[in-house]
Amino acid sequence: MHTATAYAAPSATEPLRRTHIERRDVGPSDVLIEIKYAGICHSDIHTVRGDWGPQNYPLAPGHEIAGIVTEVGCAVTKHAVGDRVGVGCMVNSCRECVNCRGGDEQYCREGNIATYGSVDRDGTITQGGYSTHVVVDEDFVLRVPVSIDLAAAAPLLCAGITTYSPLEHWGAGPGKKVAIVGMGGLGHMAVQIAHALGADVTVLSQTLSKKDDGLRLGADHYYATSDPATFLDLADTFDLIVNTVSAQIDISSYLKLLTLDGSLVNVGAPPEPLPVNVFSLILGRRSFAGSAIGGIRETQEMLDFCAEHGIAPETELIAADQINDAYERVLASDVRYRFVIDTATLV
Amino acid sequence: MHTATAYAAPSATEPLRRTHIERRDVGPSDVLIEIKYAGICHSDIHTVRGDWGPQNYPLAPGHEIAGIVTEVGCAVTKHAVGDRVGVGCMVNSCRECVNCRGGDEQYCREGNIATYGSVDRDGTITQGGYSTHVVVDEDFVLRVPVSIDLAAAAPLLCAGITTYSPLEHWGAGPGKKVAIVGMGGLGHMAVQIAHALGADVTVLSQTLSKKDDGLRLGADHYYATSDPATFLDLADTFDLIVNTVSAQIDISSYLKLLTLDGSLVNVGAPPEPLPVNVFSLILGRRSFAGSAIGGIRETQEMLDFCAEHGIAPETELIAADQINDAYERVLASDVRYRFVIDTATLV
Repeated sequence: MHTATAYAAPSATEPLRRTHIERRDVGPSDVLIEIKYAGICHSDIHTVRGDWGPQNYPLAPGHEIAGIVTEVGCAVTKHAVGDRVGVGCMVNSCRECVNCRGGDEQYCREGNIATYGSVDRDGTITQGGYSTHVVVDEDFVLRVPVSIDLAAAAPLLCAGITTYSPLEHWGAGPGKKVAIVGMGGLGHMAVQIAHALGADVTVLSQTLSKKDDGLRLGADHYYATSDPATFLDLADTFDLIVNTVSAQIDISSYLKLLTLDGSLVNVGAPPEPLPVNVFSLILGRRSFAGSAIGGIRETQEMLDFCAEHGIAPETELIAADQINDAYERVLASDVRYRFVIDTATLV
Repeated sequence: MHTATAYAAPSATEPLRRTHIERRDVGPSDVLIEIKYAGICHSDIHTVRGDWGPQNYPLAPGHEIAGIVTEVGCAVTKHAVGDRVGVGCMVNSCRECVNCRGGDEQYCREGNIATYGSVDRDGTITQGGYSTHVVVDEDFVLRVPVSIDLAAAAPLLCAGITTYSPLEHWGAGPGKKVAIVGMGGLGHMAVQIAHALGADVTVLSQTLSKKDDGLRLGADHYYATSDPATFLDLADTFDLIVNTVSAQIDISSYLKLLTLDGSLVNVGAPPEPLPVNVFSLILGRRSFAGSAIGGIRETQEMLDFCAEHGIAPETELIAADQINDAYERVLASDVRYRFVIDTATLV
């Protein structure tokens, strides 16, 4: 066993604090990673606070992990000591179900093993990336291309793949009109990726406060959803809308912005059900869909795509003792665009 | 102008009664049809009772029309006097928008002209098929194949195409598992069509009371949704679910029955929004979609498909003075499976 220093929530209602967690010994197919950076995702906050169900505590969140390989198991072939690597939202899956075999481990029929808060194969509860080290099966470790800074790589492992996957799956590309709802950590990645895929990109944000950023990152159009005219002007416009907002929004109003056969895909997950006006779907053969992160192969493809197109998140680097303040700022949408923890400050 | 005898609602709260309505003169591209049969659709009831918005009265409903051509305009080329024809849910559209040009007149960007209760091009309000005659532009008149009985043809024009279109569009066929929710007028058509398309067909009905009918019509499996075990047994099973029920059902429970990338398509439209648990969508990249009737070309294709496969609705023929009783029986789900009005009884 290795002891790692981590920042963890002692309960659903207390702030995160420094503690020690155990990491398993490096097994034959395992990789030991010295974590350099860990991104802060909105779902970290939902999870540690129990919004998505009860948790075991203490719980160290973090599923946007970038670091360096420091040890490999005897059977490891994909990674070597010194490699720049990343770990995203899952660290294992059953590997045998139809979805795993198809490369969609995120939809494992047995449930994938999440990077934190999941029951691991040895019965322990997984602990996330707000930590100095992590041990992960090599098949769930990604290669970070040399041109991507490690601090920038971290948010790609969740915010990047979560937006890349639906954009790819629903065919964002030349000739397609794509709207991104929300200009936050996920949204600012979605804009860059959709633009690089060749789509005509519109941002739908509450206000125009981030318009300059949106246009700089590749958006062709930018509208405020606080202005009712937006919903009239853009009726029947988009082939695809990716909704990155996990708060409740009026989905039916957004569905009407889709053209025939268009899809609105939620990647954010509000805890409460969203009311859907079925006429908004029927009158245009529209779809309201959902998408979760991406498979391992697809995540590697995303990293390589970002390297090729020079895509990176805009980050604010923080020390470990700023994590709790950062949570409050995430909830207040006061971050441009992703907090990344410098794990050197953990110890 | 022609005067036709019709059964119409004098208001949203009164029973339908015999009256006279005006039909326009036969224009160059028009066809005059002597209506022989008119099906009763649940949406007739919703519409005349104002559930879907205010109407002009008196209003004769009916958009499942079968009859014989008795006169054609000078420019008509597609139909001739004596032809057996049908008219469905729409009688015109703009014909110029991208959807009309693509053969999807049901999704006309200007809004198609519905068979009843719509503003026609001459400013009059369209009147439906509970009537002795109707005048319709030839492009919105369908040919009824000789092997299809006219009384059976009527329900195909709405119940048939409304289920055929999503089954076709979402790829029901060999190797696909398809569930039909509701074993009513639409459901009993959907079962036959999905079976003829080669899919493995499951009926999800409140009880098992119509199980024998379902299996006889082509279902491979039949489950009661009143039994909670159904939702456990069938989790992650279906590629496609077509929901024909227009009452509120717990959509999120049904979404969980879809396999990866599956779609649940509503063809029924409850007036109230349906609450959707977004996790049900995200954990399986599932879609909740809607579909409205079908285009004219597709409706002809459906009629020809039904003729080829010997598919027909099971009908109960009624006289005009039974219409109001029939409405109550439709609302009580007490019909196997479609009421058809013998319009000879109108006069």
